[in-house]
Amino acid sequence: MTEHIPQAESPANRLASILEASSVAIVGASADPAKITGRPLAYMLARGYQGKLFAVNPGREEVQGLRAYPSLRAIGEPVDLAIVGTEAAKVEGIVAEGIAAGVKAFVVFSSGFSETGEEGRALQARLRQLARESGVTILGPNCLGAANSASGLIASFTTALEETPLRRGAFGFVSQSGALGAYWLDIVLRSGLGFSHWITTGNECDVDAAEAIDYLVDNPDTEVIGVYLEDIRDTLRFRHALRRAAAAGKPVIAMKSGRSSAGAEAAASHTGALAGDDSLYDACLKQFGALRVNSLTELIDTARIFLHRSVPGGNRLAVMSVSGGAGVLIADEADAHGMTLPAFAPPTADALAPILPSFAKASNPLDLTGNVVQDAGSLARALSAVDADPDVDATIVFIGMMHSIAPTLAESLAALRRTLKHPLIVVWMSARADSVAALEAAHIPVFADIPQAVRALALSASVSGLHRSAVAAGVPGALHANQAGKTHAMTEWDGKALLRGQDAVCVPAGVLVEPDGQTPELTLSMPVAAKLQSTRLLHKSDAGGVILGIRDAGRLAESIRLLKDIAAKQDIPLQGVLIEQMVPFDHELILGLRRDARFGATLTLGRGGVEVELDADVVTRLLPLSAGQVEAMLRGLRASRLFEGFRGHPSMAVKEVAARIAALGEWFASLTDVEELEINPLAVRGDEVWCLDALVTRAV
Amino acid sequence: MTEHIPQAESPANRLASILEASSVAIVGASADPAKITGRPLAYMLARGYQGKLFAVNPGREEVQGLRAYPSLRAIGEPVDLAIVGTEAAKVEGIVAEGIAAGVKAFVVFSSGFSETGEEGRALQARLRQLARESGVTILGPNCLGAANSASGLIASFTTALEETPLRRGAFGFVSQSGALGAYWLDIVLRSGLGFSHWITTGNECDVDAAEAIDYLVDNPDTEVIGVYLEDIRDTLRFRHALRRAAAAGKPVIAMKSGRSSAGAEAAASHTGALAGDDSLYDACLKQFGALRVNSLTELIDTARIFLHRSVPGGNRLAVMSVSGGAGVLIADEADAHGMTLPAFAPPTADALAPILPSFAKASNPLDLTGNVVQDAGSLARALSAVDADPDVDATIVFIGMMHSIAPTLAESLAALRRTLKHPLIVVWMSARADSVAALEAAHIPVFADIPQAVRALALSASVSGLHRSAVAAGVPGALHANQAGKTHAMTEWDGKALLRGQDAVCVPAGVLVEPDGQTPELTLSMPVAAKLQSTRLLHKSDAGGVILGIRDAGRLAESIRLLKDIAAKQDIPLQGVLIEQMVPFDHELILGLRRDARFGATLTLGRGGVEVELDADVVTRLLPLSAGQVEAMLRGLRASRLFEGFRGHPSMAVKEVAARIAALGEWFASLTDVEELEINPLAVRGDEVWCLDALVTRAV
Repeated sequence: MTEHIPQAESPANRLASILEASSVAIVGASADPAKITGRPLAYMLARGYQGKLFAVNPGREEVQGLRAYPSLRAIGEPVDLAIVGTEAAKVEGIVAEGIAAGVKAFVVFSSGFSETGEEGRALQARLRQLARESGVTILGPNCLGAANSASGLIASFTTALEETPLRRGAFGFVSQSGALGAYWLDIVLRSGLGFSHWITTGNECDVDAAEAIDYLVDNPDTEVIGVYLEDIRDTLRFRHALRRAAAAGKPVIAMKSGRSSAGAEAAASHTGALAGDDSLYDACLKQFGALRVNSLTELIDTARIFLHRSVPGGNRLAVMSVSGGAGVLIADEADAHGMTLPAFAPPTADALAPILPSFAKASNPLDLTGNVVQDAGSLARALSAVDADPDVDATIVFIGMMHSIAPTLAESLAALRRTLKHPLIVVWMSARADSVAALEAAHIPVFADIPQAVRALALSASVSGLHRSAVAAGVPGALHANQAGKTHAMTEWDGKALLRGQDAVCVPAGVLVEPDGQTPELTLSMPVAAKLQSTRLLHKSDAGGVILGIRDAGRLAESIRLLKDIAAKQDIPLQGVLIEQMVPFDHELILGLRRDARFGATLTLGRGGVEVELDADVVTRLLPLSAGQVEAMLRGLRASRLFEGFRGHPSMAVKEVAARIAALGEWFASLTDVEELEINPLAVRGDEVWCLDALVTRAV
Repeated sequence: MTEHIPQAESPANRLASILEASSVAIVGASADPAKITGRPLAYMLARGYQGKLFAVNPGREEVQGLRAYPSLRAIGEPVDLAIVGTEAAKVEGIVAEGIAAGVKAFVVFSSGFSETGEEGRALQARLRQLARESGVTILGPNCLGAANSASGLIASFTTALEETPLRRGAFGFVSQSGALGAYWLDIVLRSGLGFSHWITTGNECDVDAAEAIDYLVDNPDTEVIGVYLEDIRDTLRFRHALRRAAAAGKPVIAMKSGRSSAGAEAAASHTGALAGDDSLYDACLKQFGALRVNSLTELIDTARIFLHRSVPGGNRLAVMSVSGGAGVLIADEADAHGMTLPAFAPPTADALAPILPSFAKASNPLDLTGNVVQDAGSLARALSAVDADPDVDATIVFIGMMHSIAPTLAESLAALRRTLKHPLIVVWMSARADSVAALEAAHIPVFADIPQAVRALALSASVSGLHRSAVAAGVPGALHANQAGKTHAMTEWDGKALLRGQDAVCVPAGVLVEPDGQTPELTLSMPVAAKLQSTRLLHKSDAGGVILGIRDAGRLAESIRLLKDIAAKQDIPLQGVLIEQMVPFDHELILGLRRDARFGATLTLGRGGVEVELDADVVTRLLPLSAGQVEAMLRGLRASRLFEGFRGHPSMAVKEVAARIAALGEWFASLTDVEELEINPLAVRGDEVWCLDALVTRAV
């Protein structure tokens, strides 16, 4: 499954024609710098955009000090990028004219497309068609545009740029929502983090979020990629983009709205996109190495750690605090996020002894007490000591207020930063703004309270493992979605006949007693099970349609009669009674293989039995999956200790079982006409895996 | 269990002699307003403290413009409160002198007491003795003091009061940590929330956190009580205080450090207090109605909802947003916190129709789109419409930036607030500070991002249910802790003999075969179990010490021989073999009754069987517990659906079973010499409850 990412896989950077445009025309350019088509011009003039600017406005001679051209064609020289913000009905004509005039790319602000209904969808389809036919790049429609802090290109009317200067940084952002994009921009500019590129994709008639991520992966100015998603339309391209980011070592920090069903419903209505099942989005993000967060604040907190190159190499923290209470709170939070506070090594303790009050212990968390106010240098000396500890991956220093010595403290920490071996994170409660700025300028991430600091640090520390798995993750060549959406459920007997076409999972020996047939001479050894077969009764057990533990011929005949009676009484068509040899087993799993219209084949695996419905312990991943990846799914279940021979229970050959499940997944992915295959229970004994019941749904 | 809280239960408000002092003397008053004993004087002079101020300093004629007295006695008139900040060794003498001079209360800043070791503990014990004997009130030592915003009393040297003016408010705070107290004070003053009283209790030689809470419960200026705890020394008094707060309808929002074992260890070393098992602290806070939070930010976020009297009467939210994406994110977060977004009623939808763009739906969350910028009044009109919806308990309005119309928007929302039937909460991302101030002044809580707003709102909405249970919660008269700490484990046979002294839980019929005895003539009906009895082998099953399903005399004799062999091989003293009739059951629980040194008798109840160790589903509460409270514990387990006849499994008579368990808990609480009683499994069939195995530990 592991593929090396060849250089050739790098997609053509079509977004360069927007973000690196050396000439920009604003169509319908307004003289009013507060209007949608006035703002981009005003912003670029004020920020010193390095390329050529053209105003297109047939009604005027001059716009904001620039000569106004009556049309794109009239400019008379090739233009890289045209910005369009007219009413929706005019957009198609303007784009067509621009293509004819040699424009390479368009940013379309205009709304009134797929988000408004049938007519808008048709308009948008024609725009898409224009892009495909001519090879131009279109961002939008219904987007807030894009910006590049290095060149001063601002193809946007966002008010986030009204007051704050462009500030360069290594943080790139891709947003499907203009509003969320604007809030991000406002925060990173005001907080001083700065940005490299900012891309809002809107209705995505041509450029989508995946292509924008691809651009940022290749862009040398961008170190950290933030993404706000409402929907992923081309999940294959998206997976490739995330995998390339992982291969390049660039963290992708992603928000995806619609986690809840209420949220998903609202998302569908507001973007005109069908938001899929969140568990599949979540699987996609995790498998391909993205760090998922739930708010812009959390996204920017986490990025702060990366932007200041303060990612710990492991999960072992040293904690130093001017308040013992705060040190304890950090220890609590670290524990909640899987980070540990190792005891300091003897040389560290020796180095700390002369710095601490006589009664204080050199323990982790380290309580420096308020004495720091009397001796500001003690903080730096203690920090040097714990940074040198062999068991420490990063240090969190907690400070509260200390306004009188704040400049001295900030200066000494900033100076020390370069000499430290490990990342330093500061939580400064009620800090002075100048102290925060001084520390951040020295690449020390500063947080205002404890939980957000520890959460961001823990999340950042997980990235190397995620990137390793992401680079090894497989992406299918095609999805084979059942576009018609019509399906047909098979009986267990027919489903199992299909399953006999593979050999990863065993199917118990069985015979079908036809509806009108006699009880056959059984070649099966007792005990057997008898199961009613009807495509109208798919959940057989609940209706009494399964009789287990039949040990003799008399009981078997009686069981068959009983099952036929049930079918007759419920007036459902009977396809027969399945007589099946019973198989002893030690572990009960549940396995679901499904084909999703958006994500293609998926695999859900969990603990079987009554627990499935009581307190589900399941995990879903996108196919393909290697045996190792399935093994990781099994070992990640809460019930995984059961598989290891817990309290005298027989153990499971997890590696071998995972290999069989992975093989079954591969087989399922190849059956493009099977929509769903649920095996419940999937019974395991040692390294044998048995399908005891199967529900197969075909596309028709 | 339900007790009405009589007025007489109100404790004498000893803290009034500090917080309502009409005369204050500062011992060792410094002329330097930056010194520990200079600050209180400087603060009170600057803030216009309404009472009399006396400086005591034998070395000076005058301090900060006040005449200096050589001693407390020399003042020549009674003083309510003396502030002491000298070195530890001198404190006892000063307090004794003050008592002789008629001082009613002392605030002791000085450190060097129990936090420093044996000598300091002895010093502190003598201070406590002085308080007890003379009836004076002592706050501290090793504390940051206290303040009352109404009178301008500032018996503190906290730097949090250096720059910000005292601002009155309805928020009171009790902190065992001076530092955390100071950060709280700084934040509430700078954010404009203000405060009523602020009390740091330090080493608690006399006044503890419970007494401080009691004071705030009785204080009419305080509506919301915040608490930072590192340890609860007198848990009975603390339970009474929380219950009184619940009865008074005042929310207590509590942080307790030491959630993790690492944190607990650090807490113990830094305050000199033994931090207990967090699950017991958590049970105590929940049972007595406190809202537990994990950070100061979360504490203040939650208080903001209460302080602005914006607590929803239910969990149904209307959400309105200028960004569709943000509306979805709010829906996601609401779902994660158990709140719902009901569909709007037809009249609401009709009222919204003319306000929305033609293509927009009147759905919840409601996407107002960026059109709000063009028509700022539309937000207020839509808000009135959703507020009138019969299924809405509160409205969250999301705004992002909108700097150009911010004053208009803020003004219209502030004006509307008084006309709304339900609470209004605003999330304003990248807001202008003046907009936030205008809304907060109109009692509209404003948050900067979504998760903190929704979490605080959901937490606040839970308070009425918690208060109802808290008022009904029982507090034992005494703890009966085993101070010696010596214990003796009993064999199952002896433990069950003890259990036969109650009749809530059945014990199976059994006989003990003495170590040298013969297999008895059995009066028990088969099948039976044989179990090795030895106080050196308490976990019998793991060692093969339990043989189940014995159906005849031959197998029984063989089993007894086998068990005796095990004892011989392991060289452990054998107290006999227990032969016990087997009892069929449908449900397996685990029950632990323990006596904790700090909290007294506790009850732990959970799902039994292999799950206990695999993925624990247990809950712990402090005794006494009513049958109804035990029923709530059972119904709160993840496995609770199993008890209701899940998928053909026999159901449990939950009410009756809960009554039996509650009765057993009451019986346990009365046995002051039993340290621990663990029943695993506690087997249930219908309404019968059986103790199948018991491990009893006595205090010796």
